[in-house]
Amino acid sequence: MIAVDWGTSSFRAYRLDAQGHILDRRSVARGVLTVDAGGFADVLAKEIGAWLDAEPGSIFLSGMIGSRQGWKEVPYLACPVDSGTIVKACGTVDWDRGRRLFIVPGLSCRDAHGVPDVMRGEETQIIGAIEELGGHAVVCLPGTHSKYVRMRDRRIMDFTTHLTGEVFGALWRHSILGRLGDAEAVGDEVAFDAGVDRSAEGQGLLHHLFGVRTRGLFAEIPAAGLASYLSGILIGHEIRAAAPSEPVAVIGGSELTRLYCRAFTRCGVPARPIAGETAPRGLWTIARSLGGAT
Amino acid sequence: MIAVDWGTSSFRAYRLDAQGHILDRRSVARGVLTVDAGGFADVLAKEIGAWLDAEPGSIFLSGMIGSRQGWKEVPYLACPVDSGTIVKACGTVDWDRGRRLFIVPGLSCRDAHGVPDVMRGEETQIIGAIEELGGHAVVCLPGTHSKYVRMRDRRIMDFTTHLTGEVFGALWRHSILGRLGDAEAVGDEVAFDAGVDRSAEGQGLLHHLFGVRTRGLFAEIPAAGLASYLSGILIGHEIRAAAPSEPVAVIGGSELTRLYCRAFTRCGVPARPIAGETAPRGLWTIARSLGGAT
Repeated sequence: MIAVDWGTSSFRAYRLDAQGHILDRRSVARGVLTVDAGGFADVLAKEIGAWLDAEPGSIFLSGMIGSRQGWKEVPYLACPVDSGTIVKACGTVDWDRGRRLFIVPGLSCRDAHGVPDVMRGEETQIIGAIEELGGHAVVCLPGTHSKYVRMRDRRIMDFTTHLTGEVFGALWRHSILGRLGDAEAVGDEVAFDAGVDRSAEGQGLLHHLFGVRTRGLFAEIPAAGLASYLSGILIGHEIRAAAPSEPVAVIGGSELTRLYCRAFTRCGVPARPIAGETAPRGLWTIARSLGGAT
Repeated sequence: MIAVDWGTSSFRAYRLDAQGHILDRRSVARGVLTVDAGGFADVLAKEIGAWLDAEPGSIFLSGMIGSRQGWKEVPYLACPVDSGTIVKACGTVDWDRGRRLFIVPGLSCRDAHGVPDVMRGEETQIIGAIEELGGHAVVCLPGTHSKYVRMRDRRIMDFTTHLTGEVFGALWRHSILGRLGDAEAVGDEVAFDAGVDRSAEGQGLLHHLFGVRTRGLFAEIPAAGLASYLSGILIGHEIRAAAPSEPVAVIGGSELTRLYCRAFTRCGVPARPIAGETAPRGLWTIARSLGGAT
């Protein structure tokens, strides 16, 4: 089968065998925001056209491709939801290459104060990791928009998004904080840890952010470590605000997952990484559930 | 006399009479970061050359012009300091137009956890407002880098900087948050108040920032109000983290001061605006103190 994780900034396609193993893959910077309305069919044909003869079935997609800016808007499902409900709510598109596309819906919920929250794509990653997660878990999916997802009895109960990764990028590239630093490398673990520890101190995140500048100015953090220090401050604030009351399972790219596990441990929260490529695995699971429908 | 408030992004010059009243002014976008090293003498000549015949005395400057990126680095004075110490520590430059320039030093301190903090320019504004402030005050100077300054017996004891204004600009212009909104207008008071109130709720600033996107997406805040909502969230978080334990005097541009006073009131902190142009007033006070030295 063919599975596509089509997000805001990237397009990742996978050819999978009947057991869900990855046979081939394509990853290009053709995210939803880079494609004009009406242009999705052509992008898909260009990127996976070579696989179509070998893969005669339906194609499964997740991520921002199901948003208002995507190919077809598939409405958010309100939490709590289980994977069966997600499978049934997939949107369909009849692609002019003679194939049916299934687009996984995103999820919505409201926080304790009634403010809405949304995800598109992470629900598929969670489905892809459901065996490792078990039915009862707190899952962190770090990234541009970090998610904390609470699961009970294999259902997604609710979740919270933090703008952490996007704040990091905007401040490093477009504020005074990046001016003293070297390239956007976050490999300095001493500086990263110092940032995580700083997030426990008083006077708030906005004050701690100015300290990235002053500690650079006073040469207390080396220029090559300032991006790591900033990253540690932001991730530390995210973790302490999310304040998970039980061990956390972390799903993400290997380097970011490693950093997050390090930060969780430093904040006193037990954390374990979930290995593997959860997006294609989740799309494979959804395809299998749909079974005859394809 | 001639007074110049020369900051990071703007150059503001004033001609003052013997009582400190403003006779004339120049304001141009020739901040320190827009001028190459060695170019400051020419910028000054171009902007205030026409005043030199009428003003034969020394010229007084404050702000980033005294930083490492400025005309001459004048070292930070460590708090606590009084205005007499600041006056004595002014740096001097002999300008090739036959005038002596006095550059006001910036201040430094360390917060309760030993992290350094710095200001350049705000110390002069405080000196300019000293009569209205009295000797005992908490002063907020809102802006790109908002300051909270604690004064006792007419001395600046310590202060705290928050990156609030710069975070607002970086996120509005360079993140997903600005995409749903209209122009960078912060005049929607209902949305601003909603943001200030939101800052009291749980799960932290990074989660509240994502809510700017979702409340826009769900049309709970109108597009024209999203910048105000973001501004309210950030200013609210700043105020609650700074948590002043006594009434606050706010020094700044009139619109920003009004917004901050509104937010302080909403957070339960009594606040009053300090009117008038405190930078030229402070430079005039410093010049008068130096007296015979000029």
